[in-house]
Amino acid sequence: MTFDEARAQFPVLDRHAYLNAGSSGPLPRSAVEAARARLERDLAQGRSGMPYIEDFLELRERIRSGMAAVLRTSPELVALTESTTRGCQIVVAGLGLGAGDEVVTTSEEHFGLTGSLHASGAHVVVADPDEEALLAAVTPRTRLIAVSHVLWTTGRRLDLARIRRPDGPPLLVDGAQSAGAIPVDLEGADFYTVSAQKWLCGPEPTGALFVRDPDRLRIAMPGFLAYESYEIDGSFVPREGARHFDSGWIGAAALAGLEAALAVHPEWRYEAAAKAAAHCRELLEPLADVVTPHGHATIISFHPPEDPAELVATLAQRGVVVRELPGRNLVRASCGWWTSDEDLRRLVDGIASS
Amino acid sequence: MTFDEARAQFPVLDRHAYLNAGSSGPLPRSAVEAARARLERDLAQGRSGMPYIEDFLELRERIRSGMAAVLRTSPELVALTESTTRGCQIVVAGLGLGAGDEVVTTSEEHFGLTGSLHASGAHVVVADPDEEALLAAVTPRTRLIAVSHVLWTTGRRLDLARIRRPDGPPLLVDGAQSAGAIPVDLEGADFYTVSAQKWLCGPEPTGALFVRDPDRLRIAMPGFLAYESYEIDGSFVPREGARHFDSGWIGAAALAGLEAALAVHPEWRYEAAAKAAAHCRELLEPLADVVTPHGHATIISFHPPEDPAELVATLAQRGVVVRELPGRNLVRASCGWWTSDEDLRRLVDGIASS
Repeated sequence: MTFDEARAQFPVLDRHAYLNAGSSGPLPRSAVEAARARLERDLAQGRSGMPYIEDFLELRERIRSGMAAVLRTSPELVALTESTTRGCQIVVAGLGLGAGDEVVTTSEEHFGLTGSLHASGAHVVVADPDEEALLAAVTPRTRLIAVSHVLWTTGRRLDLARIRRPDGPPLLVDGAQSAGAIPVDLEGADFYTVSAQKWLCGPEPTGALFVRDPDRLRIAMPGFLAYESYEIDGSFVPREGARHFDSGWIGAAALAGLEAALAVHPEWRYEAAAKAAAHCRELLEPLADVVTPHGHATIISFHPPEDPAELVATLAQRGVVVRELPGRNLVRASCGWWTSDEDLRRLVDGIASS
Repeated sequence: MTFDEARAQFPVLDRHAYLNAGSSGPLPRSAVEAARARLERDLAQGRSGMPYIEDFLELRERIRSGMAAVLRTSPELVALTESTTRGCQIVVAGLGLGAGDEVVTTSEEHFGLTGSLHASGAHVVVADPDEEALLAAVTPRTRLIAVSHVLWTTGRRLDLARIRRPDGPPLLVDGAQSAGAIPVDLEGADFYTVSAQKWLCGPEPTGALFVRDPDRLRIAMPGFLAYESYEIDGSFVPREGARHFDSGWIGAAALAGLEAALAVHPEWRYEAAAKAAAHCRELLEPLADVVTPHGHATIISFHPPEDPAELVATLAQRGVVVRELPGRNLVRASCGWWTSDEDLRRLVDGIASS
């Protein structure tokens, strides 16, 4: 598949310089077609009966395998969820974190992660977003280190294998800005939670959670697919592997769309995305203060020369879609394997003339 | 709107005697059209930017109002969720139930409720499914009574106002088989959780949670719409009312479909559904042992003359869609306001000739 063929799958790119996969990815036409076909099927044939359920469960297993392939792990270690946040909740609740516990995180995390940590009642220790600062913040009371693989703000990539010490606390990783953007290496991660509606271009809300040792995490939020069998008091025999963390029903149309979306990514996706990001920073550096380190991931963030909200609005009027990171005086451009030189040129021209 | 006009909204009814809204309702054509239009919009225009977000948030508020109307309460007391189960999780986690606590439930509950109770670590006390037995099971250690309004197995309706004593424990109600099926009266319920893909005929997964006093339940699973503002350690100022229990992203296509689905229900829906259920039991009584009490709700369950799984399969071959309740030797027919005499005749003929 050539670049032009690959890019032609996304109608939004005909119109916009769409540089916001870090919020929601561009949708491929095939994903919408698959979702539509599924809705039409359910409209005509209904949503029950054994063939319906079997078909739906098989679809879930195909998605599980697809997400496992993205994470380069076994499907047995992958639960299906709606979002990165849901994965955080499942882990935090499963660990039974509470008052008296400490958790260590960085100052550059998304609320989906920190909100779950805070709500547990544990003391949230905020470290600078680098490996050494995180390790320095660990104490004997630390029950969990919880960080993003790629920070949603600055696009910095953390070295997970360095953060996870053999004798240290387990590591929960927010992979919202990595899955589908960079080749994911799970080394170091005990738990790795991702969304599929961002860099994987799936319908929302879809996601997955990797659990390295599914039998050691308590099932705190069992969904209707958690069990093999259950008793009337709610006690149950869990399904094997990470399946028992499946977080509940995910719409059949969304799953069908995600299956199609997972099929559109070319083999050269990571190379192309890294190249687009590198090109983006080259073009931006003369115009703005780029904060993303060289060669980390696919988010390029910068302090703009003017008010960030105004810049984002001005760019939007020109069909250039980027986002502001509120309270941080940052604008973020998300560069995917579908990003063209022309998209980046439109971004830079928009900044230069604003 | 006449009965024929109302019924004509559901293509599945052209083909099947679809009597399984207790699992998933029939989808109206308008819901699928709305979901499709939303997907097409997102395909062409992308899923980000202020107009996208504002439009999405307004859609959520319209759904909140629509669900509040179904529950006959204020939108301020309604959170949007994906499912009845999610509402159970939010309440159980928010109450901080754990070892040493007792919760009282019935022997006829869905796993979505009992699984959440069990997973909390509290002792789950199982009472017979009637009001007196529930009250008799309450002790000073009881932190919560958790029951269905309409039992998914037998279709029995419980009297919530009788179960909730002014000096007794709070009451969590699983409304999966009531919302959209019978006129819901929230009297007695402290928490009332529902799905919208069953009797309300919405796309899955969609649902809502009523919380009588939103400021007294802890926010244990904050989603990205829980806050007005937040700090880097995850502490946050919650949104007002039950909005801070909103459980996360719900797909825009599913929400658009639900908005359309909420608009198809005629004023006479509850009368018609009750009439269909009464007619169903009249027709069944000569053939099978009906366990549903007279005049309760819209589920009619019966011990079939033969093996229930075989009967369900035989009926499916004749286009009659009902379900088995595994381990209970019961078959369940769900009667909606869209159910015709002909649908019921097909059910009865199928049983008689099997």
